[in-house]
Amino acid sequence: MIKPLGERVLVEPIEQEETTAFGIVLPDTAKEKPQEGKVVAVGSGALKDGVRVPLEVKEGDRVLFSKYAGTEVKYEGKEYLIMKESDIHAIVG
Amino acid sequence: MIKPLGERVLVEPIEQEETTAFGIVLPDTAKEKPQEGKVVAVGSGALKDGVRVPLEVKEGDRVLFSKYAGTEVKYEGKEYLIMKESDIHAIVG
Amino acid sequence: MIKPLGERVLVEPIEQEETTAFGIVLPDTAKEKPQEGKVVAVGSGALKDGVRVPLEVKEGDRVLFSKYAGTEVKYEGKEYLIMKESDIHAIVG
Amino acid sequence: MIKPLGERVLVEPIEQEETTAFGIVLPDTAKEKPQEGKVVAVGSGALKDGVRVPLEVKEGDRVLFSKYAGTEVKYEGKEYLIMKESDIHAIVG
Amino acid sequence: MIKPLGERVLVEPIEQEETTAFGIVLPDTAKEKPQEGKVVAVGSGALKDGVRVPLEVKEGDRVLFSKYAGTEVKYEGKEYLIMKESDIHAIVG
Amino acid sequence: MIKPLGERVLVEPIEQEETTAFGIVLPDTAKEKPQEGKVVAVGSGALKDGVRVPLEVKEGDRVLFSKYAGTEVKYEGKEYLIMKESDIHAIVG
Amino acid sequence: MIKPLGERVLVEPIEQEETTAFGIVLPDTAKEKPQEGKVVAVGSGALKDGVRVPLEVKEGDRVLFSKYAGTEVKYEGKEYLIMKESDIHAIVG
Repeated sequence: MIKPLGERVLVEPIEQEETTAFGIVLPDTAKEKPQEGKVVAVGSGALKDGVRVPLEVKEGDRVLFSKYAGTEVKYEGKEYLIMKESDIHAIVG
Repeated sequence: MIKPLGERVLVEPIEQEETTAFGIVLPDTAKEKPQEGKVVAVGSGALKDGVRVPLEVKEGDRVLFSKYAGTEVKYEGKEYLIMKESDIHAIVG
Repeated sequence: MIKPLGERVLVEPIEQEETTAFGIVLPDTAKEKPQEGKVVAVGSGALKDGVRVPLEVKEGDRVLFSKYAGTEVKYEGKEYLIMKESDIHAIVG
Repeated sequence: MIKPLGERVLVEPIEQEETTAFGIVLPDTAKEKPQEGKVVAVGSGALKDGVRVPLEVKEGDRVLFSKYAGTEVKYEGKEYLIMKESDIHAIVG
Repeated sequence: MIKPLGERVLVEPIEQEETTAFGIVLPDTAKEKPQEGKVVAVGSGALKDGVRVPLEVKEGDRVLFSKYAGTEVKYEGKEYLIMKESDIHAIVG
Repeated sequence: MIKPLGERVLVEPIEQEETTAFGIVLPDTAKEKPQEGKVVAVGSGALKDGVRVPLEVKEGDRVLFSKYAGTEVKYEGKEYLIMKESDIHAIVG
Repeated sequence: MIKPLGERVLVEPIEQEETTAFGIVLPDTAKEKPQEGKVVAVGSGALKDGVRVPLEVKEGDRVLFSKYAGTEVKYEGKEYLIMKESDIHAIVG
């Protein structure tokens, strides 16, 4: 088990081909394009004025996130990304 | 469905020709010129001191936003931009 | 109609010649010189700790603002600037 | 009339010769040297946590301010500087 | 004894070989890869608005942290890292 | 009279020779070395959340301050420095 | 006497040889290595939201601090460092 800390989220990236199946296709321009993934675990929330504010995303959400976001980890043979919730743009599906 | 997170907004850009029809024409100088679009979905609001503050824009609003704002996504064949509300200058129409 | 968001203000710039008529002449040195304009519409105010704080300027005010402030828009044939209130130095007249 | 906004102050700079008469002479080293001026008008104060905090300087105060502070304006033939109160170091006299 | 101050944590790094035994293998790409370690001592928490907020990690936790995080110390022959909790991405195991 | 604003302090620098007499001698290394001076006047305090917090130093205190701190002024033939209290390291004597 | 201001601490550095005697030996890598010292005097604490928050370290504590932290002073023949508490990593011993 990997339990992200604070406002961090553990995301399993979804390959581009699978992505298309869900209807998200990235257009062909110069702007940064988000990547899709599935939330696997979430932290206890950001600390604001001494209070933990729960995250908006939850386990199982399909999310769009900044392509360059996060830190890679491999756990039991699978690759994940640990990123801050602020790197996630939207929930899809 | 794409649900933007926090202070983010999903905007469908409006082409320049259509823009003219609505009376907004961009003058011809060196300053940055905003682009027009239609709000398709809004996030739950920015988190300020542990409270979600609702966004000012709502679904259906026509907005002017920074030309370089946002991240592109294509969803069910249409192109959208996900941007922060702070990248939106004004509501028009 | 253009409704500025948050702490933004819609300003109609006043040409330098007209400016002189109002008594404001910009001296001839290297420092940045403000430009004069008329406030046409104001936003609902900046968000501070979850509260909207009304702007100090109001529709009709003649203002001095940073020459490089704002974003240009043309609306129904007239040119305007959308800027943050913090780019406005003073009310004149 | 020029009414500065927020934490801004309208200052009429005093020439160096006149300065000497008031006892302030700037020493001859490499450090930045403040300039002297007279406060002509003050803003309604800085906005802190939704409250306007009145400025410390008032109309008529003679002040020392950063030599490179402010924006120049000429009004009814006289030259002024609009600066933030934080650019003012001290009240003299 | 080494008692970290504030939001700091004392971590005993775990060698890569041992890491594999726990199921964490770092993938082979260009992104920054976290390192694994064991929390040995924790500070009294970060100071937020005059209140000490206890840390999320505790003595004995196995953690993933930024590879370049922290300051090295050797104490009674063992090597440790003192880092801020914000440099720790997740608790594993 | 020079009345510093806010968190500013008016300091009369003390020459190095006199400094030695008070027991403070600056060691001979590459690190920044503080200078000694006497507080001549203090501001009304820094503004924190709408409240003036009185300064820690008071008139007459001998202080160590950053060698490059402050702005020089000459008043009635004497040279002073106006600096922020945060540039003062310690009270000595 | 030297009384540090605010969140500052007066530290007497301990030579590397003496350090070894206390069990702290600095490993031989490229990372920044902390230095050891003894707290001689502490300030009244950092100012947070108008309240003085007492420091965590106290007179007599042996501490590890950033090697490049602080400002040097010599007082009655001894060399000290004045640093912010945030430059201190841990209490040892």
